[in-house]
Amino acid sequence: MNQPLPKLAIIGGTGALGSGLAKRWAEAGYPVIIGSRSSEKASLAAEEITSQNHTISVIGTDNHTAAVQGEVIVIAVPFSSHAEILHSIKDTVSEKIVVDTTVPLKPPKVGTVQLPEAGSAAIITQQLLGAETKVVSALHNVAAHKLHDQEPIDCDVLVCGNIKTAREVVIGLIQALGMRGLHAGPIANSVAIEAMTSVLITINRLYKVADAGFKITGDLNSSEKENI
Amino acid sequence: MNQPLPKLAIIGGTGALGSGLAKRWAEAGYPVIIGSRSSEKASLAAEEITSQNHTISVIGTDNHTAAVQGEVIVIAVPFSSHAEILHSIKDTVSEKIVVDTTVPLKPPKVGTVQLPEAGSAAIITQQLLGAETKVVSALHNVAAHKLHDQEPIDCDVLVCGNIKTAREVVIGLIQALGMRGLHAGPIANSVAIEAMTSVLITINRLYKVADAGFKITGDLNSSEKENI
Repeated sequence: MNQPLPKLAIIGGTGALGSGLAKRWAEAGYPVIIGSRSSEKASLAAEEITSQNHTISVIGTDNHTAAVQGEVIVIAVPFSSHAEILHSIKDTVSEKIVVDTTVPLKPPKVGTVQLPEAGSAAIITQQLLGAETKVVSALHNVAAHKLHDQEPIDCDVLVCGNIKTAREVVIGLIQALGMRGLHAGPIANSVAIEAMTSVLITINRLYKVADAGFKITGDLNSSEKENI
Repeated sequence: MNQPLPKLAIIGGTGALGSGLAKRWAEAGYPVIIGSRSSEKASLAAEEITSQNHTISVIGTDNHTAAVQGEVIVIAVPFSSHAEILHSIKDTVSEKIVVDTTVPLKPPKVGTVQLPEAGSAAIITQQLLGAETKVVSALHNVAAHKLHDQEPIDCDVLVCGNIKTAREVVIGLIQALGMRGLHAGPIANSVAIEAMTSVLITINRLYKVADAGFKITGDLNSSEKENI
């Protein structure tokens, strides 16, 4: 690899999903910045990861500083604080890739699809950050506890976004996590994948499992992808 | 099997999906009635199927007669005629199971999720037919040409509906088609699966395949399902 890997800022990086992503990306060689409302909590989370592996790069700071320093910004916050946190980092992200993992779950009925008025969390993000920000939605359906394990994760990650080159970067990031990322069309399509999260939560409950996911079937790997 | 298999009426049964379903269910031993706007077209479609296999039961008639005679009603019509056809059979279906396969695609951008105002086709169906009708949504993502082949179909079918016993019946029908049907929660969750159809259309186009589908991962088969 000739180019240095981009610096990743994980906003909400002390949560289960964010810290799992931080760990896996750092282990894959990416410099990672964990952001949190509290820079102390972020530093502790970073230290917990680096204490297990001294050769990797993870630091912790507040969300705004993380978003300033990161080259690719990953949003890993609950839907209830999604809009507020996006507002707080909006001035730092123009023209950057912003990877939104947010699922618009409304407790207590998290197993029932309840879409926000705008249609999906990713549409809200694109509207809020503006068209010049390369919003890409992904990683909605990955069980956070699996990222913390060392085992392979048996699901695909569908990647939506209006700009192809930005989707390509995120697909590379997903490969670095050990999963297959697939182009899934414009940001409007994120509604399908966000809503699938409630379906998977329902399947987990009904079938008494903890890790339902999905994989796309069909002979995708052998096909030419030049025109994507 | 002690009980006779229920009589299936397929509304819009001359189309690619409807005729594929008719063929597979008839081959599995179900008595099938193909409905169409034109009873002549329906009879021709039925004869085409029975001419290949004289031991199976498929007849053709108009949509309304099919809905009167069927015990389980399957809707396999394009979204553009969905509401109109449901109105025309509404008086025949109260308390029956109505399996809605409709995907709210809006040409020409069928690869982009464009949800109807009500949220999903299945929600429209439930509202239109009333709460006493057991609306179950399923079979949105099955490639019609695969039903016509004899080969196994490599995808799962997610089944939504507000009444568990109705979902169970439909899961049995899906097993008879050679696929795994899974409980996916209330009718509100159908939006996820309907919207996934546009994502799969996009994946087919981008990866140059004809048969993208999805399978749920996780150890579902070994789990107890008594409380579903």
